[in-house]
Amino acid sequence: MPYLSDRIELIRISPIRMIAALLDKARASRSIISFGGGAPSLPPPRELLEEIENLIREKPIKALGYCGTRGLPELRNLIAEDLKKYTGVEYDGEKEIMITDGSTEGIFLTFLSILNKNDEVILIDPTYLGYTEPIKLAGGRIVRIPAKVENGYQPDPEDLKNSVTKRTRAFVLLSPDNPTGRVISREFVKTLVDLAQEHDFWIIYDGAYQHIVYEGENTWPQSYPGAKEYTISVHTFSKEASIPGLRVGYVAAPKEVISAMEKLKQYTSLAPNTFAQYALLKFYENGVKERYLRDVVIPTYKSRRDLMGELIRKYLPEARTITPHGAFYFFVDIRPYLELMGRNDKEFASRLLYRKEVVVIPGSYFGSMGNGHVRMTFVSEPEERIKEGIERIWEFVFSYTI
Amino acid sequence: MPYLSDRIELIRISPIRMIAALLDKARASRSIISFGGGAPSLPPPRELLEEIENLIREKPIKALGYCGTRGLPELRNLIAEDLKKYTGVEYDGEKEIMITDGSTEGIFLTFLSILNKNDEVILIDPTYLGYTEPIKLAGGRIVRIPAKVENGYQPDPEDLKNSVTKRTRAFVLLSPDNPTGRVISREFVKTLVDLAQEHDFWIIYDGAYQHIVYEGENTWPQSYPGAKEYTISVHTFSKEASIPGLRVGYVAAPKEVISAMEKLKQYTSLAPNTFAQYALLKFYENGVKERYLRDVVIPTYKSRRDLMGELIRKYLPEARTITPHGAFYFFVDIRPYLELMGRNDKEFASRLLYRKEVVVIPGSYFGSMGNGHVRMTFVSEPEERIKEGIERIWEFVFSYTI
Repeated sequence: MPYLSDRIELIRISPIRMIAALLDKARASRSIISFGGGAPSLPPPRELLEEIENLIREKPIKALGYCGTRGLPELRNLIAEDLKKYTGVEYDGEKEIMITDGSTEGIFLTFLSILNKNDEVILIDPTYLGYTEPIKLAGGRIVRIPAKVENGYQPDPEDLKNSVTKRTRAFVLLSPDNPTGRVISREFVKTLVDLAQEHDFWIIYDGAYQHIVYEGENTWPQSYPGAKEYTISVHTFSKEASIPGLRVGYVAAPKEVISAMEKLKQYTSLAPNTFAQYALLKFYENGVKERYLRDVVIPTYKSRRDLMGELIRKYLPEARTITPHGAFYFFVDIRPYLELMGRNDKEFASRLLYRKEVVVIPGSYFGSMGNGHVRMTFVSEPEERIKEGIERIWEFVFSYTI
Repeated sequence: MPYLSDRIELIRISPIRMIAALLDKARASRSIISFGGGAPSLPPPRELLEEIENLIREKPIKALGYCGTRGLPELRNLIAEDLKKYTGVEYDGEKEIMITDGSTEGIFLTFLSILNKNDEVILIDPTYLGYTEPIKLAGGRIVRIPAKVENGYQPDPEDLKNSVTKRTRAFVLLSPDNPTGRVISREFVKTLVDLAQEHDFWIIYDGAYQHIVYEGENTWPQSYPGAKEYTISVHTFSKEASIPGLRVGYVAAPKEVISAMEKLKQYTSLAPNTFAQYALLKFYENGVKERYLRDVVIPTYKSRRDLMGELIRKYLPEARTITPHGAFYFFVDIRPYLELMGRNDKEFASRLLYRKEVVVIPGSYFGSMGNGHVRMTFVSEPEERIKEGIERIWEFVFSYTI
């Protein structure tokens, strides 16, 4: 067999994807309780499903045919209107919006579009796993600023100021955050926007959970005066429309960025899924999106969140966490228990699965600040199984610590 | 606005995608006759459409949920069986097959997986446009060997031998070919396999049109003894199932290559479209695929091909071309006419569109050997419009040459 490229050694298998097989097993076995993955567990909006049936019956050739690399103009225009509503910013659907294969492709194309060798990207630690490897593939370097449970997982604006160098090319902001559930503070975003303008770097905003907010309001960095020209805003329909398997997201950014991404996308995936885009037109019509979020998504997940929070406080009183105001997760500092057990977070997770058939994600997967933490999602299991899962965790910890 | 990366300047907008807007216009205006794009114009198999409706009614959460990065195991196993039938080669569905976002992603991941800086990739000139830019993005260099109409667009095995160097890392074989419709000769493939084994380079086989063969049989390089370990075989459902808008393809390769591609794909697109994969299970059941190709695809396109060939001979007797034994295109050397007209192939195409509303693709888009040629697809228009289109081309040429 001939050689493979050196870049393959540069990147690692995503730990989250490594446990995908585990989660498959969890789905197959009713006895495994999964607080692991972050996939929505609700059916998509009825109107979207009905539209798929209509498309198949009425225009299969058109709906299953190619579309342009940037995606359907009709959908891009609806997205622009929608962004206006939430961010207050005008985007031109033709020039400043591009449809992507989920936000994963949006993130990948973003880094390829902006990074030269040794350019620095500042990440919050802990944060989503999917940024580091594409930064490395694009030749960039990673700089981190911490977020700690004692500050509500809010990063410190002073740390951000101190981490900016001449080589800073971008800062990545995920809000609401995975794994912590933190909704970013307005104070931090204000500092971020000022620094980006002063030092001419990009704000990459990841809006994966933008509408999964239980209290207060999300902050979009492009909403600040003058910030639009510094912001690459990456989005997905996976969470807010509960359709991760259709692989559709979008990017909103200055037209030069969209042109650069379009050039790249021709060779990464040619064009987005036409069919899913036609179906998604219905998501923006007649208030479907707002109704689905307000009546289905938020109440279901909020209720599960409240239950899980209450149970964590009851059964793991020494643990420290925050009540997540958004997204799908509790990020729990369990160091008091780990010390008593003589285990780290990875050992905790693997033994918990083996002994009690409960899946949690080791916090160290999300950065060194996540050491001694576990991420637990409340969206995968119904309430009675959330209760049973936390009880099993308590039994597991108790068996070590008595 | 902050800077963009230098790599954006390295690559060009695909000329084919540049005319996508044009083709959109063609679709909107009945008066434009398109011999331009290469998208199937037939509805997908009925069984596949019915399955989409079933999925929506019976298991929307599962069908619209995430799957693993490599794709659904059931589909990968069916693909392995199918490849065995055509190539005679055993593939392990679990380890040696990965689902991709069309063959575009397969090609992109292939080059990222095998190329280091300045590694050489040998292409046939002319060939499909989609190889050069991802080779450049991966740091590779392009070497070309010619294919000429007088040799039936078959490349010369001697040219291949002479182009291999110490830096040769891969050869790309598209058969049946775009733009020429040539089905590769067994003699050439034999030489290719021998050279790959001797010099330890990859054979990248692009099977986009593998089943669109009108006479004779396609040759799969992995079918040769010992060749499997040297072959990365890239495929798509876009042409053979007429579903380009669903963006599904696959790669069959040694397990080390699939592992490398999986690592990369986690960050390019995370996972393939789950929904389309479930629907495609039906493509492999109960002889659906063979029946669809035999009863629908091949007879429809063959009849159009025969008509277009006859009309080219009648109306453009000085042009030189071959009867394509596969794929969707005539690649026509029109230099005798261009000389009389004092135009090159790009000017010919743009003036033809302006004056006569017929779309053809300039041959020089496919490599320097394509200068003075045009590519004309016979799959986009029904027969009466093929006739009208060729008559309009004749009128156009005639208006210049009398």
